[in-house]
Amino acid sequence: MEANGPELRRDRLAGRWVIVAPERLGRPIDFHPVVHAARPSSSRTCPLCPGHEKHTPPESFALRPRRSAPDGPGWRVRAIPNKFPALGREDRGAMGHAGLPFPSLPGIGAHEVVVDTPEHGREWADLPLGQVRAVLEVYRHRMAALGQAVPVRFIQLFKNKGREAGASLSHSHSQIIAMPVVPDDAAREAARAKREMVRTGRCPYCLMIEEEKKAGSRLIALDRHFAAFVPFAARFPYETRIVPLRHAAEFRTASDEELAALAGTALKVLTRMKERLGDPPYNIVLRQAPLVRSAAFHWSLDILPVLTHIAGFELGTGMFINPVRPEASARELRR
Amino acid sequence: MEANGPELRRDRLAGRWVIVAPERLGRPIDFHPVVHAARPSSSRTCPLCPGHEKHTPPESFALRPRRSAPDGPGWRVRAIPNKFPALGREDRGAMGHAGLPFPSLPGIGAHEVVVDTPEHGREWADLPLGQVRAVLEVYRHRMAALGQAVPVRFIQLFKNKGREAGASLSHSHSQIIAMPVVPDDAAREAARAKREMVRTGRCPYCLMIEEEKKAGSRLIALDRHFAAFVPFAARFPYETRIVPLRHAAEFRTASDEELAALAGTALKVLTRMKERLGDPPYNIVLRQAPLVRSAAFHWSLDILPVLTHIAGFELGTGMFINPVRPEASARELRR
Repeated sequence: MEANGPELRRDRLAGRWVIVAPERLGRPIDFHPVVHAARPSSSRTCPLCPGHEKHTPPESFALRPRRSAPDGPGWRVRAIPNKFPALGREDRGAMGHAGLPFPSLPGIGAHEVVVDTPEHGREWADLPLGQVRAVLEVYRHRMAALGQAVPVRFIQLFKNKGREAGASLSHSHSQIIAMPVVPDDAAREAARAKREMVRTGRCPYCLMIEEEKKAGSRLIALDRHFAAFVPFAARFPYETRIVPLRHAAEFRTASDEELAALAGTALKVLTRMKERLGDPPYNIVLRQAPLVRSAAFHWSLDILPVLTHIAGFELGTGMFINPVRPEASARELRR
Repeated sequence: MEANGPELRRDRLAGRWVIVAPERLGRPIDFHPVVHAARPSSSRTCPLCPGHEKHTPPESFALRPRRSAPDGPGWRVRAIPNKFPALGREDRGAMGHAGLPFPSLPGIGAHEVVVDTPEHGREWADLPLGQVRAVLEVYRHRMAALGQAVPVRFIQLFKNKGREAGASLSHSHSQIIAMPVVPDDAAREAARAKREMVRTGRCPYCLMIEEEKKAGSRLIALDRHFAAFVPFAARFPYETRIVPLRHAAEFRTASDEELAALAGTALKVLTRMKERLGDPPYNIVLRQAPLVRSAAFHWSLDILPVLTHIAGFELGTGMFINPVRPEASARELRR
């Protein structure tokens, strides 16, 4: 059913209201369009390009031919510690305050960069399927390895494509931050999902996937392993969730076959976004359960095009205003 | 105490971890700088300028000379319903789904625009104190009026200055959204504060203000009515909170004298940001209690310069990475 009045939708697992307000799209904009920053014309100074391996910390992992030496060229995908990390390996005594009302912890954890391709200037939508699959394999390897570290309780993998999406380097790359705390949002979502599972005897994410398949209006793609759909309470226009049909809480449990299928679905969605939305900046967010026993969780790969700004309303409320109905987003990405 | 290692800080009332990572500032950026969109050269087409009152819905309130007619020129500050509202006055049957797993509500509420000044192209930092005080008086009036409506349970007032901060019109204005639900973040914060108050017998915000005065390192300004400081777990560089010393949960209870003092403090902070941070885009967020009995709350006016991007990490975790230590932000804004 189509209607154009505003609507409040609830993501009951995330615990979040979203305002769906299609009329907002009609509002006038008197600023000049944002001038997108051009890519640098050459890769001469790019620290992520082959031949510049010495400009980064030594690699933690790489897909490279058997004979090629670490930290030299030849790699297909390369993982390195972030030279400018959000969280570091050791406690360097940053805390100058203890206890209430100013609680804090040393910033211990890990922050890695995955270089998605040796080719400067090519994004996921420009890469062959095998390369994206290789990137996902490196994700799986690094998330499993970083999850072994003792104080790590949560791992966030993400990718920022384009300046407006928060990238500081244009060479296609992803980031993994392993941290000693569970973000409050994730802890609450896992707790809510667990309560639902106890109450109903079923995983609420499995149920949601079933309902999305039944409704169909937000579905973008479906195969043996994954469903891609615009979430009912999507925060952003064309926000897309790719979720495994198999009940799985953590990404590191994905099989080779699943990774190949995920690469295919992600490329399908990203190619359509590139063609139909004017190659927008985007964020990719890999949702997964906290690294504590969370049986009632489903990981997903979320793709969030950056077409609107996060502004005062969102910062004040933690809610979002989505000017495109999720069903309209899905229709555009489905056809 | 100064240190440069990363640190995890907790805002225990908001229920949020923030990573303070000063080393992130040193990272290279290979994009060209964002080209800031210039203001349109004339106000001929601006729907918020005097003489164009017919381009907006009829005003809900205005400060104007006794003899001047509504919806004509002459006003100092003008409040109007948003022509492209996020929430509307009436139910127009947007819901095509009921119950689990897709809960939703009709988007009923109010969305108003406050035009801060008749002068196109002047921002708060360019306005005389009396004009900013008048804007705050209109805020108080509209928030009190909108709060009377029956289904309204929460009011969010905010201001987006500049395209990168989410503004679509350059003429200085603010927005008020009155909604039928309480954002989960606000509900949780109010509940946490109440628990603390019951446990300790003291308002935790009053305690925080006291501790900030004692610490001093994050303080920017202090007078008889307001403290301005960078929050201990600030999400953004130079984020500034202006909070009344008097225990008050809702903005509509502010006295005339308090509004005059608030205008002075806000102008002081905004002028310094303009001079020292290169006139950045910013958001202003008026925090206040949900419109249900919330004795344990303190409203505040938060000013958030837009100097970094919200990216995959923030979208994935609900946490923030702040590359400038709050104490360093305060030092810069204090001097």
